[in-house]
Amino acid sequence: MTLDIATRVYNHGFRIDPIIRSLLDTDFYKFLMLQLIREKNPDVRATFGLINRTKSVRIADAIDERELRDQLDHARTIRFQKNELIWLAGNSFYGVKQIFKPEFLDWLADFQLPEYDLHRTADGQYELLFEGPWCETTLWEIPALAIVSELRARAAVKGMSRFELDVLYAKAKAKLWGKIERLRLLGREGPLKIADFGTRRRHGFLWQKWCVEALQEGLGENFVGTSNVKMAMDAGLEAIGTNAHELPMVYAALAETDAALHQAPYAVLKDWAEMYDGNLLVILPDTYGTTAFLKDAPEWILAWKGIRPDSKPPIEGAEEAIAWWASHGLDPREKLIVLSDGMDIDTIEDAVRHFRGRVNLSIGWGTNVTNDFRDCAPDGKDDRLAAISLVCKVVEANGRPAVKLSDNANKATGPAEEIARYRRVFGQDEIARQPVLV
Amino acid sequence: MTLDIATRVYNHGFRIDPIIRSLLDTDFYKFLMLQLIREKNPDVRATFGLINRTKSVRIADAIDERELRDQLDHARTIRFQKNELIWLAGNSFYGVKQIFKPEFLDWLADFQLPEYDLHRTADGQYELLFEGPWCETTLWEIPALAIVSELRARAAVKGMSRFELDVLYAKAKAKLWGKIERLRLLGREGPLKIADFGTRRRHGFLWQKWCVEALQEGLGENFVGTSNVKMAMDAGLEAIGTNAHELPMVYAALAETDAALHQAPYAVLKDWAEMYDGNLLVILPDTYGTTAFLKDAPEWILAWKGIRPDSKPPIEGAEEAIAWWASHGLDPREKLIVLSDGMDIDTIEDAVRHFRGRVNLSIGWGTNVTNDFRDCAPDGKDDRLAAISLVCKVVEANGRPAVKLSDNANKATGPAEEIARYRRVFGQDEIARQPVLV
Repeated sequence: MTLDIATRVYNHGFRIDPIIRSLLDTDFYKFLMLQLIREKNPDVRATFGLINRTKSVRIADAIDERELRDQLDHARTIRFQKNELIWLAGNSFYGVKQIFKPEFLDWLADFQLPEYDLHRTADGQYELLFEGPWCETTLWEIPALAIVSELRARAAVKGMSRFELDVLYAKAKAKLWGKIERLRLLGREGPLKIADFGTRRRHGFLWQKWCVEALQEGLGENFVGTSNVKMAMDAGLEAIGTNAHELPMVYAALAETDAALHQAPYAVLKDWAEMYDGNLLVILPDTYGTTAFLKDAPEWILAWKGIRPDSKPPIEGAEEAIAWWASHGLDPREKLIVLSDGMDIDTIEDAVRHFRGRVNLSIGWGTNVTNDFRDCAPDGKDDRLAAISLVCKVVEANGRPAVKLSDNANKATGPAEEIARYRRVFGQDEIARQPVLV
Repeated sequence: MTLDIATRVYNHGFRIDPIIRSLLDTDFYKFLMLQLIREKNPDVRATFGLINRTKSVRIADAIDERELRDQLDHARTIRFQKNELIWLAGNSFYGVKQIFKPEFLDWLADFQLPEYDLHRTADGQYELLFEGPWCETTLWEIPALAIVSELRARAAVKGMSRFELDVLYAKAKAKLWGKIERLRLLGREGPLKIADFGTRRRHGFLWQKWCVEALQEGLGENFVGTSNVKMAMDAGLEAIGTNAHELPMVYAALAETDAALHQAPYAVLKDWAEMYDGNLLVILPDTYGTTAFLKDAPEWILAWKGIRPDSKPPIEGAEEAIAWWASHGLDPREKLIVLSDGMDIDTIEDAVRHFRGRVNLSIGWGTNVTNDFRDCAPDGKDDRLAAISLVCKVVEANGRPAVKLSDNANKATGPAEEIARYRRVFGQDEIARQPVLV
């Protein structure tokens, strides 16, 4: 085989192999939220922090601090490319043209990820904080998670021979394709909509790319898109996503009274509805408990297109939404449920079959598509390759602590006394305690 | 990614992608037998013919005749390279130095594969005959089989997308590695010796290379070598093999009387023992029925190192050999059994566990290592990738028909009246009828 010496020598010269190479290598909802943040809350400061909910994995032992800094530093050198901004400007999202305003895109052109603050903690974790204007720190969430996730995977495969790596990826490919084949059968039975939501906890960029191409090739029309903007652009797919917990968490943190706190989640939706429409009107109801949210929701929210249950068991969460619509005389068959919390092939099959004909269902498939290497390591030891529950959450807004309760007490974040206050304000109905897997 | 234009343009220029690129890309036993043929039977003419025992597969429909001719023609352009002959001369085989005589190697230097005769038959097969001096036609067996086998595989994957191919090989790799992992466990329990015998019915050269590297990496010392001389040379492995049915078949065809016919299999071993020694003294007992062979075997054959049962169920064939040695007061623990007929992971595990501590066992693993693509095609249709029972056998020697009976009546070859005569001469004890899988 002829060796391309120039390529080989060029490769020698890499100082690092960058994980993040484009500011579009992030989730689409970040841009929707960012546009809202800049318009409605341009002066709010928000601190994001990395939290490893899988305490048994000591990330700081697995990942070299120098390598982590190099990757974070490299991400800060990246700017939006001209072709990327043109694509954001010229593309239709959810059927809507010019969803991003020219002023917003101009602002993006000069964007740089802000500084970070990194410390090793005594319990073998990293404290990684991003402090600054909310409209800057918010864009760290996905690249920070993707960097830590991929560095952990790189450390896990370090030392494997070329051949062991070959088998590792062969097994992972065969495994994912096995899931896709089951989904093809599922898609033949009736409607099926799957999207890739796996950027944040992916094994690696190239692996996610392979997974997205596999879904595209294997599922055809049943694969409706990816949350990863860069991959959507490169593969000609729809960019998928709406909004996340950071909006109600910041609005809640900024609330001056308990009454304002109670209204904060609805205030978010009000601002959102002023900016977006149609399929982008998807409620994320669980920040402070779904049951409380729905019980006290103002009537205009019934007009929204869908709900994304995110911390109850998926069928239970979706049934609650259906019951809520039905109790208000609405036909759930005209509504949309997005399930995206730790879904995998079994729960996808169950949910799709369970709700067929009753509601429009869309699956956001995350960690279990882009980072499922269980039973793939050739030596049978794949602990170090197992996905962990890593999140990057807003922890403070304008100096006040941010709080999340969710429907699962194990996912609650924030200072204990604030959690107690929030529970008092929102009620504690139906908040269960379930294991957090991914 | 930088594209190596020179390489790409060079690749454009290929007229064909040659399957056989070295005359060492064949089984080692061909050279051992060839040296004997040249020394003991230099003037014998022998015709080899391709036989597809899987009649349900119409090879001539699957493989384009032009492509087949191009590949056969290309193989005829190849000569032994200087470094290949140096390796044959300088390497030790089975611990013996200079196993090939200088005169033999000089003769190889000018060797060219002889002409072939190809016709399409009415039943959708190819009649592919090699007529000429035995010492020339014998070397066609393996390349002819490998060419037909790989062309069939190429036809099967033609039209698959790059992505489907990726999944196909990923699944095949995961599948083989699954078998290797079971063999690793088996090797930890006790002695285990596995060799690759898969050249003739391989999916393709590159795939066999991957399989051999996988076995080498996965099994370490338990992988004792490969029958493929080129791969043994390139990978620094032992070249494995002794002798095949063509020797007794030609000797039998040349026998002038029934008495001489009955002695022919022993005459082969006599000639063999004059040339080779030690671990190369492995009896292939089944050409005209193992039971008859052992019953009438002269006593000096008891001194031979081992037996390779080839057409009875493996444990049954090996037990018969062990009983034969034991009945003559020999300790089977000092003897060797080579099992190489259609072995796969289950039968390997069974045989190794069954005979542990009772006899030295060596496994020649063929088609099921280099061409097991069952359940690997992404569309679930892998009929066209399923291995078939293709052989290239001697059909005539000096104008007389060649006959094989074997221990399995379904493997008998030759004209009906000759088969009847051979059965009369050798007896029909213990000849069963079993399905022929590979």
